[in-house]
Amino acid sequence: MASLDLRHLVQDNGSKILLFVWDGLGGIGAGPDGRTELEAARTPNADRLAAQGTCGLLEPVGPGITPGSGPGHLGLFGYDPVEYPIGRGALEAVGVGFDFRAGDVAARLNFCTRDAAGRITDRRAGRIPTEESKVVVARIAEAVREVDGVEALWAPVKEHRALLVLRGEGLGDGVEDTDPQKEGVPPVEPRARDEAKANVRTARVAAKVLARAMDAIRGEAKANGILARGFALRPTWPTMRERFGLRAAVAAGTPMYRGVARLVGMEPLEATNDVAKDVASVAAAWDRYDFFFLHYKHTDKAGEDGNFEAKVHYIEEADAALPALERLRPDVLIVTADHSTPSAMKGHSWHPVPVLLSAKTARRDGAAKFGESACRTGGLGLRPSTHLMPLALAHAGRLAKFGA
Amino acid sequence: MASLDLRHLVQDNGSKILLFVWDGLGGIGAGPDGRTELEAARTPNADRLAAQGTCGLLEPVGPGITPGSGPGHLGLFGYDPVEYPIGRGALEAVGVGFDFRAGDVAARLNFCTRDAAGRITDRRAGRIPTEESKVVVARIAEAVREVDGVEALWAPVKEHRALLVLRGEGLGDGVEDTDPQKEGVPPVEPRARDEAKANVRTARVAAKVLARAMDAIRGEAKANGILARGFALRPTWPTMRERFGLRAAVAAGTPMYRGVARLVGMEPLEATNDVAKDVASVAAAWDRYDFFFLHYKHTDKAGEDGNFEAKVHYIEEADAALPALERLRPDVLIVTADHSTPSAMKGHSWHPVPVLLSAKTARRDGAAKFGESACRTGGLGLRPSTHLMPLALAHAGRLAKFGA
Repeated sequence: MASLDLRHLVQDNGSKILLFVWDGLGGIGAGPDGRTELEAARTPNADRLAAQGTCGLLEPVGPGITPGSGPGHLGLFGYDPVEYPIGRGALEAVGVGFDFRAGDVAARLNFCTRDAAGRITDRRAGRIPTEESKVVVARIAEAVREVDGVEALWAPVKEHRALLVLRGEGLGDGVEDTDPQKEGVPPVEPRARDEAKANVRTARVAAKVLARAMDAIRGEAKANGILARGFALRPTWPTMRERFGLRAAVAAGTPMYRGVARLVGMEPLEATNDVAKDVASVAAAWDRYDFFFLHYKHTDKAGEDGNFEAKVHYIEEADAALPALERLRPDVLIVTADHSTPSAMKGHSWHPVPVLLSAKTARRDGAAKFGESACRTGGLGLRPSTHLMPLALAHAGRLAKFGA
Repeated sequence: MASLDLRHLVQDNGSKILLFVWDGLGGIGAGPDGRTELEAARTPNADRLAAQGTCGLLEPVGPGITPGSGPGHLGLFGYDPVEYPIGRGALEAVGVGFDFRAGDVAARLNFCTRDAAGRITDRRAGRIPTEESKVVVARIAEAVREVDGVEALWAPVKEHRALLVLRGEGLGDGVEDTDPQKEGVPPVEPRARDEAKANVRTARVAAKVLARAMDAIRGEAKANGILARGFALRPTWPTMRERFGLRAAVAAGTPMYRGVARLVGMEPLEATNDVAKDVASVAAAWDRYDFFFLHYKHTDKAGEDGNFEAKVHYIEEADAALPALERLRPDVLIVTADHSTPSAMKGHSWHPVPVLLSAKTARRDGAAKFGESACRTGGLGLRPSTHLMPLALAHAGRLAKFGA
């Protein structure tokens, strides 16, 4: 069916929605009894909410698609991740918590090693340690601050990777990568993808910026060259306020999630990945916002590590945080995930994620426990994750009737 | 949600996917206990795979849409049958196992009876028997081989129906039917649908070809006229290799299914509709392909005949073939159908078809039996059949993460 623009229906009734994301929560049945981490965990609070509320499964991006952290969260925020793509440079800027502004163009950098003739001999500069990379980035940042009226901003990332952000008027992101994808040749010059003025200007500035930066590090044994990839403008998307009428805030201790949330207009609250503190942070801001996104990271990490028991433990820790959130009396309280991270797979997966929605208007569905199996027959059914926001708004009394 | 072009995500890890289609498998509850044919059958192998794997229901084309054999299979292959229409002439060519090539234009022919003035007196030539029709087609094939540099190729179909394929440079399929849809008037001349050169040329050639053919059979008592319908080029679609990175093969004893599979680039293996032999054929080709489509016809035939017991019997026969397929160690083994053929309805129907997917990464869903009822609450939920291929690719480890 054609989807409806909710802008015409949203209304403000002062209600509050709390989205509590247990990152990577979903699992697959592993072990002799086929239980997932969530099913093995003791989650009395989520179970109680599930029993009183309605449950289901959300498919983050599409059938079979394993989402990265960006797309996984965008779906939950009501932004179809296929329609709202984040360029690679932009995601890197967001991921390191860079103050990435509208009009900025970001690119991912790899340090590389070049020989005396300028040819690449190692595309990853021997994967130099982050500490070493930081020093190199600092030297570049000192040497290259501005070119043709465009600011050049630099940030270290991890190992041989770094971030370049160009800030100035009239920049574009139609600029090709400078990584030739092979060794034995010099880096490619940044080239505009077309004749658009903004792209031509950006390619020219990028060429000068990168040349000067390589000049500044030419004495380095390993990181004496730079490859730039994924030039991307900061997305300028309609905010959650514009689309859903929500003043939205994010409490996420990890820059990536905070950054993605900021791309849809959420305002950042203090957060540390200490769940009690992050809950307190939400509580302190309770009166100022309509929508809160609280991010819990540890479940994903344990799944990535392939540690079933640790994931169970962290699920129980997240569960224990629920009563403090309930005391805030959100009109809609949702527990779900951005994607599955089955510890049996040691990575993200495409499996649908469990969701529970607690609200006075929730239709009880008899799920007595919060788990993948119970959610499979839950009242919300199996749906794309983009359905969550309209449902949350409805249960919050924030959507007017459609048609008379 | 917007759908994603998987081309950017597919990767080759050497894994193998086996799609075992039990044609027309789905049923509706009939008889005193309301069980379907599948539920009444003893299927220990499928039940075991269902218990370890994940189940669901697939909707072949759309809600309420009863698919023909072409669309039903295209959906399973990941080709939305609405986006990938097969012209009627093309389907006929494929259905009779004609060597239908890119650039060929096919049309379905009906023999008709005409009076001395050339007016149609019977649009189906008294439904002459196939044997009689074969003789008439042979006479035409002898008499009309080429017109204006275009080859005319002829094949008998069933009763009064036959196939014409035009082969030559620059042909089009924008040509109107010559069947006036009523008696008492002569056949219509083939007319181009527009002024495109290829269509004008094809209409002109078709007019000459049909006139000469009718000349050759004017002495026939019944089949002395020809009506041509559904002019259609062979579709030129991206192959499964292009879209999904899969070297694909088909083992289907019936030309129609083999033909549809070839339209998406599958290579034909020897097949006879003797399931043990067809399984052996798959086994012999195991190392050469990534994806195997094994077709089992008898279930559909029994459904069409309205024979519940026969359908149960053939389901059990198909089930007995599973262990030999399991011994090939496919990474993903799928059992499903192209459409339902409830014996209570004696024909295809729109009812969703049961599907079971067996893979190491399958989330167990507690289905203890392979059947419509168990599948209804299975982990895959109820989905369009086009979702099956992305899921199969994911479980085979052939899809990279989307976004970071």
